[in-house]
Amino acid sequence: MGGLVMPPPCRVRGGNGKANMAESGKIPPPARDAFIVTVPDSSSRPLAVIILAAGQGTRMKSSLHKVLHPVAGRPMLLHLLASAGALSPQRQVVVVGAGREQVEQAVAGTGAIVAVQAQQLGTGHAVAQAHDALAGFAGDVLILYGDVPLVSVGTMRAMLDRLSRGDEPRAVVLGFRPDDAAAYGRIIADGQGIIEKMVEYKDASEGERAVTLCNSGLMAVRSTDLFVLLDQIGNQNAAGEYYLPDIVMLPGGTSAVIETEAWEVAGVNSRIELAGVEGVWQARRRAEAMREGVTLVAPETVFFSHDTVLGRDVVVEPNVVFGPGVTVADDVVIHAFSNLEGATIARGAAIGPYARLRPGAEIGVKAKVGNFVEIKKATLGEGAKVNHLSYIGDASVGAGANIGAGTITCNYDGFFKYRTEIGAGAFIGSNSALVAPATIGAGAIVAAGSVVTKPVEADALCLVRPDQVGKPGWAKRFRERMLARKAAAKG
Amino acid sequence: MGGLVMPPPCRVRGGNGKANMAESGKIPPPARDAFIVTVPDSSSRPLAVIILAAGQGTRMKSSLHKVLHPVAGRPMLLHLLASAGALSPQRQVVVVGAGREQVEQAVAGTGAIVAVQAQQLGTGHAVAQAHDALAGFAGDVLILYGDVPLVSVGTMRAMLDRLSRGDEPRAVVLGFRPDDAAAYGRIIADGQGIIEKMVEYKDASEGERAVTLCNSGLMAVRSTDLFVLLDQIGNQNAAGEYYLPDIVMLPGGTSAVIETEAWEVAGVNSRIELAGVEGVWQARRRAEAMREGVTLVAPETVFFSHDTVLGRDVVVEPNVVFGPGVTVADDVVIHAFSNLEGATIARGAAIGPYARLRPGAEIGVKAKVGNFVEIKKATLGEGAKVNHLSYIGDASVGAGANIGAGTITCNYDGFFKYRTEIGAGAFIGSNSALVAPATIGAGAIVAAGSVVTKPVEADALCLVRPDQVGKPGWAKRFRERMLARKAAAKG
Amino acid sequence: MGGLVMPPPCRVRGGNGKANMAESGKIPPPARDAFIVTVPDSSSRPLAVIILAAGQGTRMKSSLHKVLHPVAGRPMLLHLLASAGALSPQRQVVVVGAGREQVEQAVAGTGAIVAVQAQQLGTGHAVAQAHDALAGFAGDVLILYGDVPLVSVGTMRAMLDRLSRGDEPRAVVLGFRPDDAAAYGRIIADGQGIIEKMVEYKDASEGERAVTLCNSGLMAVRSTDLFVLLDQIGNQNAAGEYYLPDIVMLPGGTSAVIETEAWEVAGVNSRIELAGVEGVWQARRRAEAMREGVTLVAPETVFFSHDTVLGRDVVVEPNVVFGPGVTVADDVVIHAFSNLEGATIARGAAIGPYARLRPGAEIGVKAKVGNFVEIKKATLGEGAKVNHLSYIGDASVGAGANIGAGTITCNYDGFFKYRTEIGAGAFIGSNSALVAPATIGAGAIVAAGSVVTKPVEADALCLVRPDQVGKPGWAKRFRERMLARKAAAKG
Repeated sequence: MGGLVMPPPCRVRGGNGKANMAESGKIPPPARDAFIVTVPDSSSRPLAVIILAAGQGTRMKSSLHKVLHPVAGRPMLLHLLASAGALSPQRQVVVVGAGREQVEQAVAGTGAIVAVQAQQLGTGHAVAQAHDALAGFAGDVLILYGDVPLVSVGTMRAMLDRLSRGDEPRAVVLGFRPDDAAAYGRIIADGQGIIEKMVEYKDASEGERAVTLCNSGLMAVRSTDLFVLLDQIGNQNAAGEYYLPDIVMLPGGTSAVIETEAWEVAGVNSRIELAGVEGVWQARRRAEAMREGVTLVAPETVFFSHDTVLGRDVVVEPNVVFGPGVTVADDVVIHAFSNLEGATIARGAAIGPYARLRPGAEIGVKAKVGNFVEIKKATLGEGAKVNHLSYIGDASVGAGANIGAGTITCNYDGFFKYRTEIGAGAFIGSNSALVAPATIGAGAIVAAGSVVTKPVEADALCLVRPDQVGKPGWAKRFRERMLARKAAAKG
Repeated sequence: MGGLVMPPPCRVRGGNGKANMAESGKIPPPARDAFIVTVPDSSSRPLAVIILAAGQGTRMKSSLHKVLHPVAGRPMLLHLLASAGALSPQRQVVVVGAGREQVEQAVAGTGAIVAVQAQQLGTGHAVAQAHDALAGFAGDVLILYGDVPLVSVGTMRAMLDRLSRGDEPRAVVLGFRPDDAAAYGRIIADGQGIIEKMVEYKDASEGERAVTLCNSGLMAVRSTDLFVLLDQIGNQNAAGEYYLPDIVMLPGGTSAVIETEAWEVAGVNSRIELAGVEGVWQARRRAEAMREGVTLVAPETVFFSHDTVLGRDVVVEPNVVFGPGVTVADDVVIHAFSNLEGATIARGAAIGPYARLRPGAEIGVKAKVGNFVEIKKATLGEGAKVNHLSYIGDASVGAGANIGAGTITCNYDGFFKYRTEIGAGAFIGSNSALVAPATIGAGAIVAAGSVVTKPVEADALCLVRPDQVGKPGWAKRFRERMLARKAAAKG
Repeated sequence: MGGLVMPPPCRVRGGNGKANMAESGKIPPPARDAFIVTVPDSSSRPLAVIILAAGQGTRMKSSLHKVLHPVAGRPMLLHLLASAGALSPQRQVVVVGAGREQVEQAVAGTGAIVAVQAQQLGTGHAVAQAHDALAGFAGDVLILYGDVPLVSVGTMRAMLDRLSRGDEPRAVVLGFRPDDAAAYGRIIADGQGIIEKMVEYKDASEGERAVTLCNSGLMAVRSTDLFVLLDQIGNQNAAGEYYLPDIVMLPGGTSAVIETEAWEVAGVNSRIELAGVEGVWQARRRAEAMREGVTLVAPETVFFSHDTVLGRDVVVEPNVVFGPGVTVADDVVIHAFSNLEGATIARGAAIGPYARLRPGAEIGVKAKVGNFVEIKKATLGEGAKVNHLSYIGDASVGAGANIGAGTITCNYDGFFKYRTEIGAGAFIGSNSALVAPATIGAGAIVAAGSVVTKPVEADALCLVRPDQVGKPGWAKRFRERMLARKAAAKG
């Protein structure tokens, strides 16, 4: 029954007036700190991050490099660089195969270094390509995957913490327990998480297959160990590849596993999986918004961007899409079918329905943007109103000004853009065109249907309007002529 | 895989040409009478309703009182007052803690009385605060919770019926069986529903915890018993509170449990739970609409209001949002992305896509409202058309009139609103502005781009248009100049 | 928790750098060839198809015949005729009861014959009504149901293949295993699929009820057997009807069962089931689109039509609705809230948000259609832009032309439609009305707010604009007067 998916059972009031239970387990718990931007941790040792991004991504069927496909409006790779960046790594190395240029362009300005794996000889070999980029670095190394974008800062830190704890294992592997363990590699570990064996599914015994702890591939290793260990693994397997996990079972040290939830290590090899990861991200972000005091009437129809900021008692009606760069203050209502991007909305404003806010839209306190209205690079003052069918671009609208239906700021001549300044309390009659550069003084009135090409002074009336001509009976004669022509055309 | 949630398996034709089975159990069965407005029942005894609304609602993180958060466009508290109202109670008492003013304002006109629980001393204490408001009342008392809004009239009546049946229990408790009984209080009852024990989860034995029947907190008691019993309960518990359910196990009488489905007693303590209850309400309303002969192409994308009325063979395309006060007659098509509120739509009309109907929109038989069109406080006659990019407010449009793209009724001068009257069969050319008060006679034609400020008589042509001026070669020279300037700006 | 439905767990990277597993089992596998249009198979024997469509459809509560209710924008019956048509049948017979005219009109031009079952005497009797329409036909007969629209060409062929394989059974029945077998008729078969017994649920023993293989009602039989067998079945049952499945157990031959997935034989008896089948179709189509290299940011919010064609690296943002007849080339971005129908979009174009493309819209390479723009029967040349609040109908727009915000082509005079031709590189100033028939030469500029009624030559400037009149202080006086009037109205 499409669309009739029942929400999971809601929590129900306890009989004794006690507070309800924590929310249903069907909603993922809050990410430990998935949305935190910077987590300085002075106690941590020097850190380098290697992000493997050398996969072909053939199943994506795309000209765009796999790790550059966006989740929540940001390329997967940049999610990882941002999350890992919160741990203040000294170096971040992205290992790419094909598509180096695309990746270099995407990471420009982030400080990340791009290393190239010319041949696809396995994950162990890929990590080895970061050797030069890490020359001179001594500390911990965190190995991530460019197509596993949701791993949280908290989990990264937990891996590093485990690496430096008491028994100081040589490697820390991130494990998880999928709903359906299927053919994942299994991790056999003791009660303290010391790994006894890592085994690929096809080589596993029945007892090993019954183990539900699986290997995500993510790993933390000390730089002093990493390349030494990589030198020791071989490629005596069917694919002739060097596998990173093989370093775990090398003699001379122990490795430990720590565990995280499966959604966090979800990988993207196809657009279906990309949509899946996007869905997980959105579901978690929606739950977080609601926990912080935002009403989402129909959470499943609201799409956030990676950097959306929302105040308290914001109400978001069904079907709202946030592009990057939106900040919404308290007590704002965003009505249905609105699409916001690069916009700042002040307290108590009302947006939409069908409002299109584009980059540079700054909506003032208690201002109102109504239906079929586009605002771009424009400021609306406190209480200003643009209620219907208008385009306001490259403009400032003073406090309390009223912009009539169908108003257009003509900001472009095909070559340059020009600004329109509308004073406080001005009234722009419907269907007017303000040809920029344009100035409408405070308190001025522009009569409906005017094409304004010269400045209008404060408190003046501006009228651009020919005389109205009436031709009695003309419409009747026209109608008769046309009906005759229609009849002729048919006959 | 976000968005790839498969609908539950559909029912499949029986092999013997027999009718199919009832619809899948995944869809909640029709509410016994959740949407019935009035159910007079002359045989019932006098009834009073107490609605507890004294909870702090801290987890909502809102300045709005918890019970005033809306579900289906109506505050939760008003849902309860409406449902209980169908049983014609003599009194309805809402017990509030903080936020009394908000609640009083919300119930103004409903006849409900607001009582105040100054200190939060438990549900038993809260009910006791209704004592004065019920002075002189003798009959049954139904105790509801302001944040448990979905309980149906049928369930309420079933509780009252049980109270007056043969054995006449002293109290009737509403039980339910949640999917995950978790830490709810358990009800131990015999085969006839006579309660042997009610026990909080933490005090329950293993055997008692295995019982799946849980206490919703809702209760029916006779007024002659209620306050006597409340006087006998104590607050010797960790929280030092008086618990309403404690009246059940007091000596001197028996209590009975009746059972309902878990969704009906879902409570709202957070915005996530609010969204959950909204989701349940919407899913049920959608199923009801389809059962009554409405096609919802994608039911999960259609949002109804508590009072939406829909005719037969109405088709609703994906992504349609109904605000309060919409009535739709038979054979109407509502195309995608429409947003309707306070509108009445007559038989065979076509609405949208992207139609915005606001309060007072009255769309005539077979009339057509097209894309990016807003109609407010306006009547469209039979077969009238407003197909594109228009704003029609405070107006009447005669039968068969055609309103061209980009037409605006200029109904506001910054201070007052004025009406526009368009006669039957009139033709308004595109991009016209009709400055109200405006009158366009029947059969008149307004030429495209006119700003109409004077009445247009029937069958006349109205033309408001300056001469067209052509400046040959001007655009070429302008282009050359601008290109040069652009080059200069760069160089 | 409405809308917080978690996507099924995503596949996670294997630890050894191996490719991920096939996508989650929660997504239906690709239809064997559900979307293939023609599958000529020269080896097949002559084929006739009988589609039963005589059910009353009372539960639909509709004036429209049940089998004409659309799925993915196409009547269910036409889905079946198209799928069966891929097997090149010699005849297709639709057996109807009431509503013959509606069905005849719907199948006009398909070559299908309509036969009438005047009385509802069971499925066996219904099939018998195809007797005359199949006079002279010798070959295989496939029996389908007009309200079971999703059965794939592959499954149809599998039934026919089984009919002609080695043991050549007399009838081939299509079985399935529903999640909840409920009261379906059971099929008891041996290891080779030879049917030992078919039994209605109510007549089944406990052991038979434990069998999960159910009868879908679909069947393949040779024409030489079909009517002979139908003559032998009786109506000695409670309903007094002739049941088609009864031919299976008649003496003198064996019948075989083949099995398909339950979703494929989902039937539609109510609008809830119609929505369910639509949901299955959409979910499968979305998955197919993603597999072929289309990004669906939020797949569950995108609705395809039966004939939508999408290129590679197309990105579809949330909330996009495709009507019939849309073809989208590679590298196109379709932004949120767009609604497309009968449109062709060339490589690299950008559409929306809030773009409304109607039949005959042809959008050129890298052209741009922006927000609140409607395009109908119009061609946009390469790189042409219509970015805001415009209506372009019955027009051609040359390459690189820029159509300003609020431009309207006035293409209709109430009787006829006229064309507008805009040359390459032309610039139409905002809020202009182009009264068709209209010609704007290449490189011409139309000044903002013009109503263009005469041809504009290439490279010319066209200006239609009265003088601007300023009345200093007027607005202030007006404001004072109105405020006084408002005060008076109140006082």
